[in-house]
Amino acid sequence: MRAEIVAIGTELLLGQIVDTNSTWMAEQLAAAGIDCQFQTRVGDNLERIAEALEIALDRSEAVITCGGLGPTQDDITREAIAVVMGVPLRRDPDLLAKVEAIFAERGREMSPTNARQADLPVGAIAIEQRRGTAPGLICPIGEKVVYALPGVPDELREMVRRAVLPDLTARSGERAVIVSRTLRTWGLGESKLAEIVAPRLDSLDGLGRGAPTIAFLASGIEGIKVRVTVKAPDAEAARAALDVEEKALRELLGTVVFGVDDETMEHAVGEHLLARKLTLAIAESFTGGLIASRVVALPGASGWLRGAVVAYASDVKHTVLAVPEGPVVTAEAAASMADGARRLLGADVGLATTGVAGPDEQEGLAPGTAFAGIALPGSEPVGVALRLSGGRDRIRQIGSISALDELRRRLLALG
Amino acid sequence: MRAEIVAIGTELLLGQIVDTNSTWMAEQLAAAGIDCQFQTRVGDNLERIAEALEIALDRSEAVITCGGLGPTQDDITREAIAVVMGVPLRRDPDLLAKVEAIFAERGREMSPTNARQADLPVGAIAIEQRRGTAPGLICPIGEKVVYALPGVPDELREMVRRAVLPDLTARSGERAVIVSRTLRTWGLGESKLAEIVAPRLDSLDGLGRGAPTIAFLASGIEGIKVRVTVKAPDAEAARAALDVEEKALRELLGTVVFGVDDETMEHAVGEHLLARKLTLAIAESFTGGLIASRVVALPGASGWLRGAVVAYASDVKHTVLAVPEGPVVTAEAAASMADGARRLLGADVGLATTGVAGPDEQEGLAPGTAFAGIALPGSEPVGVALRLSGGRDRIRQIGSISALDELRRRLLALG
Repeated sequence: MRAEIVAIGTELLLGQIVDTNSTWMAEQLAAAGIDCQFQTRVGDNLERIAEALEIALDRSEAVITCGGLGPTQDDITREAIAVVMGVPLRRDPDLLAKVEAIFAERGREMSPTNARQADLPVGAIAIEQRRGTAPGLICPIGEKVVYALPGVPDELREMVRRAVLPDLTARSGERAVIVSRTLRTWGLGESKLAEIVAPRLDSLDGLGRGAPTIAFLASGIEGIKVRVTVKAPDAEAARAALDVEEKALRELLGTVVFGVDDETMEHAVGEHLLARKLTLAIAESFTGGLIASRVVALPGASGWLRGAVVAYASDVKHTVLAVPEGPVVTAEAAASMADGARRLLGADVGLATTGVAGPDEQEGLAPGTAFAGIALPGSEPVGVALRLSGGRDRIRQIGSISALDELRRRLLALG
Repeated sequence: MRAEIVAIGTELLLGQIVDTNSTWMAEQLAAAGIDCQFQTRVGDNLERIAEALEIALDRSEAVITCGGLGPTQDDITREAIAVVMGVPLRRDPDLLAKVEAIFAERGREMSPTNARQADLPVGAIAIEQRRGTAPGLICPIGEKVVYALPGVPDELREMVRRAVLPDLTARSGERAVIVSRTLRTWGLGESKLAEIVAPRLDSLDGLGRGAPTIAFLASGIEGIKVRVTVKAPDAEAARAALDVEEKALRELLGTVVFGVDDETMEHAVGEHLLARKLTLAIAESFTGGLIASRVVALPGASGWLRGAVVAYASDVKHTVLAVPEGPVVTAEAAASMADGARRLLGADVGLATTGVAGPDEQEGLAPGTAFAGIALPGSEPVGVALRLSGGRDRIRQIGSISALDELRRRLLALG
């Protein structure tokens, strides 16, 4: 059973709103084990909507549309579906009564165009609308089907859960669920990770169709994600299969894995600090508050974060953090900053960054030169070089995550 | 000239990431006056990518793809385009040398699969990659063209601005230029802004087709954008027309306008501080480093930012910033924090935030209760209430911009 999504609305094509409906529906289809191979966006144009529907029905068994069910002239999804079905539109008296009742209940005058929301292609049935005004549609076309939903996310989601997914699942006879789990990594590039994971990829390839699949996702700067996807008879079996894959991959990848799914690097650091009942103080220069900002975004950070100092002007590092006079973009200065921060803010652990974000050099050093300082209880504060490259923003972002990673690894080593 | 967007990547079909690239590109096409009638999303499957490209080329003159240009097995956009072009892939020695140089510069070992990023369909040319690794492609197919771009938004946007839009515009033979300028506002909602601007909208309506248009864009949290678009014979005439519109709108909107186009609130604050030769220190609590982080992102911030203290644990506000003992989510505490920060860091001006980000209450106050503290030379430090709502993240983000706005308005008032 293959389903496609056709999102309708000129404002989508103009990039004025982000198409969150398609993304959300795609997630639901994946979780229900229904293949979605194409998603299309088209504007409020009768011929082009009909064309998009015909192309979709030519290669998939089900099409879900969103948008174009309102009362205005631009709302022509019903008309387009009727064209594709080869039938007329008929104004349904029961639906009309319901639409009129909604306006009466809201104490609002109903302009005549609203009656369009009671039109049905002959042969289609309505999906009751429980939040807005326009009902959805289920439109059978031979063995296939087109579901039409309103574009308002809240209304769409309610109808998808209540009416569309059950109907689709019944039609597909599909029992299976498709679930993914993502291992978050830091420090290695995509190809290197693929090399390390190759033995597992080879084993899985040998299992043939339906075996777990592994994909590498490099979106954004948060490190390469290794995503495992399994298909199983139910959610519990899927979870078990994912556990097996996760274990196998962690054995190969070791400490490059810092988290699972949405867990960030700072989340991993927080877990380690909480487990050891340690508090943290941060001293930042070129990262400029990015590290503190990421940490504060975590619920529960108040359990372990004392605070941070952004020592942006160089002399502030000496006066506020007690860094000895001299160059500030050095491993020693990073170590001093970490120590100075934890003393000033009364924390157990200190993390610091110092470096050159660019575009200009600093102290004769090129952009990307940077150090992280880590001060742990019972050991001398250390400074370690970070290898950063790219523009100013990228250097700050990667520098923040790299510094947190240096702390994470040393906390791990504490045992 | 009709262009289509084909976004490639199974993670899009599974709804695991939001397709921001298509939305952004659609906005750019609209601003450039290029019709975009269809947008498609397809997975990492050779036949289906080729099918999507063929369908698109059948009805449009240009196709822009994003995704699938990385080094791994899933990255098959180059292969699919070559199939549609009916040509082989050729490994380009110059591109290969560039890819190898990128790895050398980052001090990383290049695994062999990375060489795939140097493959070109015969007849295609590369779009130089200035931020990541994989180059983009311009693939002529008869009179038509396919542009292939990386999926990483930063890399894609850079290539679209530099290489794709100019090429598309040249191909479209569009003589007129369509240019927009955006006025950035803060503090009023869309309807209120529309009311204020209505007199200008009415004048423009009277001018008929081809007159400047005004749109209100409410995406994201950076404030409502008022975007003026003009069509003119050349760039200079367009600029002059935009100047006229900007002046008219600023007369109506006054100080709610803080910047133009990409200028952020912090940029506006920086301009005011620089003009008055003042330095700034920041004290943050619930915003947790977001304000400092935004400021440090500005080139030239070192000209006026001394640093920041994130006083996350409450006692840190008292010990480090000399805030008098007592509740910390008050206007008085905000004023003390601002004063304490500028004294500690040796700055002329202090800006502080204190508040409840949620989800829990603090000092018996609901999430969204917040104050900004502003300490200016020659006047008593003040604390002002901010009206914040939403989830934790939104409260921190809106709180940061609102606090900066309070400082901006007071700097403006200094004359």
